[in-house]
Amino acid sequence: MNHVAELLATHPQGTPSEALVRCIEECFACVVDCTSCADADLAEEDVQDLRHCIRLCLDCADVCDATGKVLTRQTSSEPRLTRSLLEACLRACRLCAEECEQHAAHHEHCRVCAETCRRCEQACANLLASAT
Amino acid sequence: MNHVAELLATHPQGTPSEALVRCIEECFACVVDCTSCADADLAEEDVQDLRHCIRLCLDCADVCDATGKVLTRQTSSEPRLTRSLLEACLRACRLCAEECEQHAAHHEHCRVCAETCRRCEQACANLLASAT
Amino acid sequence: MNHVAELLATHPQGTPSEALVRCIEECFACVVDCTSCADADLAEEDVQDLRHCIRLCLDCADVCDATGKVLTRQTSSEPRLTRSLLEACLRACRLCAEECEQHAAHHEHCRVCAETCRRCEQACANLLASAT
Amino acid sequence: MNHVAELLATHPQGTPSEALVRCIEECFACVVDCTSCADADLAEEDVQDLRHCIRLCLDCADVCDATGKVLTRQTSSEPRLTRSLLEACLRACRLCAEECEQHAAHHEHCRVCAETCRRCEQACANLLASAT
Repeated sequence: MNHVAELLATHPQGTPSEALVRCIEECFACVVDCTSCADADLAEEDVQDLRHCIRLCLDCADVCDATGKVLTRQTSSEPRLTRSLLEACLRACRLCAEECEQHAAHHEHCRVCAETCRRCEQACANLLASAT
Repeated sequence: MNHVAELLATHPQGTPSEALVRCIEECFACVVDCTSCADADLAEEDVQDLRHCIRLCLDCADVCDATGKVLTRQTSSEPRLTRSLLEACLRACRLCAEECEQHAAHHEHCRVCAETCRRCEQACANLLASAT
Repeated sequence: MNHVAELLATHPQGTPSEALVRCIEECFACVVDCTSCADADLAEEDVQDLRHCIRLCLDCADVCDATGKVLTRQTSSEPRLTRSLLEACLRACRLCAEECEQHAAHHEHCRVCAETCRRCEQACANLLASAT
Repeated sequence: MNHVAELLATHPQGTPSEALVRCIEECFACVVDCTSCADADLAEEDVQDLRHCIRLCLDCADVCDATGKVLTRQTSSEPRLTRSLLEACLRACRLCAEECEQHAAHHEHCRVCAETCRRCEQACANLLASAT
């Protein structure tokens, strides 16, 4: 059992779904990778061509941060908020992935970041599909 | 001219709309008030009856934080992300306001927080309506 | 009475000091202005010369965000943490102000941001001096 | 090689130290575990006895979040800020760990959170010791 699953199993609320655990993990992974990719873009010689990438990475980090924290909380959850936020997070990840994929051939950090964003986009989609 | 309007007028992108300026201000006001209300709830004798309120205040602070930062950025914006995030933010503010209003008669901080959340909800709605 | 003073006066903990209220306001103002300045830098033609400025603005926004939230909370505070965090926040604001001042003549957003950082630096110093 | 090490190896700045990689990982682990522990505390029957724990978990999450992001950035770093922030982060983790340890026998989430905070405290100490 991974760490987030073990952690949430200690909550009075009881065992979370696998889709929820996965989405929390992917949101926080996206915070780290998008923060790092924006910063690596900034150090590149062609920083002028990476403005859109930096912008989307910063936004994606902020949205995944909020989503990861809201999903982590289990006390007295509001499914209407969760659903709406997951849709915004999925959108942020998709847009950031599409942009990073444009630079993946030249910048390894963009390749890594795009993969992380795609995993988070999929984890959001899976959680949206699984929620009743 | 207020501070956020003055600030954004210095951006190479040019002058922002009044609806955007207002929404940025209300998002950051919501971060402060929701953070404070969750903390004041925690110090109350009837904290057991305020769990839902604390939870929604923490969520609303996180969502408004992300939304305020994304809206503040003007470089290479993505309207699809802005719109989706505004919908999540409007939802977070409405849910938090509805809950704080239940406690407003007994807890002055809930009355203040509810008013701030309602203003942010309205500012999100106005910005959604104004965006082309 | 301004909004943060009014807000904290509703807390069971009672009336906060003027130095605390001022520092909370300046921390959150710094979050907005540093987020905006980093983004405006990114849109400038001379973005390559503004890398250090963008980096320091992003850091300053993050540190002021954490400091503003910790200072806003009044329930069961830990003066040792407050003090240590104020020292880090003062440092972040000073470094960001020094860098933005280098660009203030050419970029109006750097001038505005530098002033905000200096006010926050001073507010942190005042709160550190006033705390017993 | 773990993910953060692999990620930072793609940065133009070059390979980061093992102490830095470890500290970034522990900061973000602390964000998740402290967010979750504060929320689990809130759902417990004895929430009134867990106010200090909730407060310290919220603070620790905010400080680790800022520290994790500042440490992740490698472009044009300021060692004076890093050092000051690491000291605040170490303090936040130690205070949170001490409090969670008081509840570890009764609440499994406090036991898990205390362990995570102690690892982050140690990682901050190691990075402070290794930095020239």
